[in-house]
Amino acid sequence: MVQRIEVPAREGRGALVQAGTRFRAVDVEGKQCGDVFAFCAANPSEFASAEHTRVSCGRLFPRIGEQFVTNLRRPILTIVEDTSPGKHDMLVAACDPTRYQLLGVQSWHASCQENLQKVMSEFGRADIEVPQPINVFTNIPVLGDGSLDWRPALTRPGDSITFRAELDCYVVLSACPQDIVAINDKNPTRMALEVLDG
Amino acid sequence: MVQRIEVPAREGRGALVQAGTRFRAVDVEGKQCGDVFAFCAANPSEFASAEHTRVSCGRLFPRIGEQFVTNLRRPILTIVEDTSPGKHDMLVAACDPTRYQLLGVQSWHASCQENLQKVMSEFGRADIEVPQPINVFTNIPVLGDGSLDWRPALTRPGDSITFRAELDCYVVLSACPQDIVAINDKNPTRMALEVLDG
Repeated sequence: MVQRIEVPAREGRGALVQAGTRFRAVDVEGKQCGDVFAFCAANPSEFASAEHTRVSCGRLFPRIGEQFVTNLRRPILTIVEDTSPGKHDMLVAACDPTRYQLLGVQSWHASCQENLQKVMSEFGRADIEVPQPINVFTNIPVLGDGSLDWRPALTRPGDSITFRAELDCYVVLSACPQDIVAINDKNPTRMALEVLDG
Repeated sequence: MVQRIEVPAREGRGALVQAGTRFRAVDVEGKQCGDVFAFCAANPSEFASAEHTRVSCGRLFPRIGEQFVTNLRRPILTIVEDTSPGKHDMLVAACDPTRYQLLGVQSWHASCQENLQKVMSEFGRADIEVPQPINVFTNIPVLGDGSLDWRPALTRPGDSITFRAELDCYVVLSACPQDIVAINDKNPTRMALEVLDG
């Protein structure tokens, strides 16, 4: 392993990952969702795109060996390993201050959107779009009538999902601060972003 | 009715619609998908957002009486009537030149993305993002294993879906030029955008 970046509960962290390098999102304590984002280093207006990925793989979420593509339909990430129960989401937007206001929160609340923007600002890339995230470990099934259900994550301590970067990219992992709906079992905890040797 | 805008096969057309006004996407000949986009007139960086709408309505697609919200989580459109069989999509990206290249098309091919960009340029708004469209009449079911299936539209001639604008917005309808996969029964045809009195 090259680098382990601790992601405190409710915060985000990032890394510049070279093409061919693997990286891993780790749920350290279990039942914790992570929002993963990937932006092309050469041009962050190109990023991992949920709606283009669904067309590319013909599924709601890629399987092991399948790829995420960008809004220019270029492969940017491949899933290479998944030790979690395999429940992930690409349907729901990153939480943001308005989401918490609408849920009744009166004061400031950490959010994946602000976590992303903070990390990308630190990379000197404050002007990014906020894409639909790759919501790892996030258990939001589509029911038979087309409705969605926000269920607690099924991950156990140490579960991880590993990707290989197909392009040089900024990768951001936000340990989702959601504590109103049940996706983090109402107890947001820390994660880790491990950048492995290629 | 105030205004009926004919949308030629494979092309796009738009209108500036005031809050409170209804408008309708019409499949004139049947089995034709339309890509609908809505951008706030005051600030086109705010637009109808699939991933925020799914959170707001708790479904893959809103039902009659339910709303589409923007990337700032404000209601922008409400579905008020639907005379079609009710199969619509918000999962797959607008087709674009790269989509057709990847499908084996060697030369230029019309696309919903270029149609959108052309219409918005004519409104003096060339710098928009290309959002995930509201793919009306588009029959792409999610199967039990999470896979998607590109099926022919089920619409009959004259079927329509009617929205009410909740904000002043630019509305664009692209008559999808897709003729490689089956969603338009491999025969793209014309549509109409009807702007009704409020």
